[in-house]
Amino acid sequence: MITVLRIGHRIHRDKRITTHVALVARAFGADQILIDTLDKKLEESIIRTCKYFGGNFKIKTGINPKKTLKEWKGKIAHLTMYGEKLEKSIKKIDEKSKLLIVIGAEKVPAYIYDIADYNVSIGNQPHSEVAALAIFLDRYTDAKWLNKKFNGKIQIQPSNKGKNVLTIEK
Amino acid sequence: MITVLRIGHRIHRDKRITTHVALVARAFGADQILIDTLDKKLEESIIRTCKYFGGNFKIKTGINPKKTLKEWKGKIAHLTMYGEKLEKSIKKIDEKSKLLIVIGAEKVPAYIYDIADYNVSIGNQPHSEVAALAIFLDRYTDAKWLNKKFNGKIQIQPSNKGKNVLTIEK
Repeated sequence: MITVLRIGHRIHRDKRITTHVALVARAFGADQILIDTLDKKLEESIIRTCKYFGGNFKIKTGINPKKTLKEWKGKIAHLTMYGEKLEKSIKKIDEKSKLLIVIGAEKVPAYIYDIADYNVSIGNQPHSEVAALAIFLDRYTDAKWLNKKFNGKIQIQPSNKGKNVLTIEK
Repeated sequence: MITVLRIGHRIHRDKRITTHVALVARAFGADQILIDTLDKKLEESIIRTCKYFGGNFKIKTGINPKKTLKEWKGKIAHLTMYGEKLEKSIKKIDEKSKLLIVIGAEKVPAYIYDIADYNVSIGNQPHSEVAALAIFLDRYTDAKWLNKKFNGKIQIQPSNKGKNVLTIEK
């Protein structure tokens, strides 16, 4: 069970980035995403993707991050450029526990570093929380996300030229 | 030599996503990024990152993508959810050639699929061009980007708690 917690979401500024974070969470094998700021449009957009492309991914916005973190029964991994090296950190993560992956937008409050069991860096250069989440989930799932079946109404068939799309009536 | 070509960049709408694409290109081992739409602010922001965090990454905006693609001396890999499976595609890529990686924003013109030597899918689910570029470069560099030295004025030391930043006078 993998949950992503996105904190510091600002509806206008982060609209597209948080959408990418949520789509990456879904495509790379997470089960749900929790977002601090209430954002119904974002919820609808992700629910629409699930409706057509399948899977059981869940989204909830307008949650209290401090409460969620304090009451979390499982492990917490915070992705940050200041964290411990990915290769080292990933080995320490208890895979039998429910995992909460915390992703900030810009600066995150200091308590996040303390409450996290693992502060993980995906490289120590500035880049993107979208990329950080993708690489973390790729390593955590041993790249199994690449072959995950979503059984959606729309299924894309890999092809070196053109577009090959299966539309399944259900 | 790895170049990223970002097409369909719209200054207002894609400001943050294209910035993330450029930062990922730099952090994950590409040498330069070319962006179709002229965007001086974006150029300045990436140059500022290079100034502090190091490396020789180059950015150029306002380039003609069709001309760039037609005159490219090397191989072209287009990242798309419709493409061939990553695991299969990556093995075919000629590593001795200069590589141009094409990343669209929303729908890309049909000629891109034809001109590309490789249309590569990073999973066949909708997610993010930022994540797609990160995973592609991760595989293409055999994860060597994680240990790339940038020798910047600011160097972050990995740490499981808190922030450990070295500032080097040059």
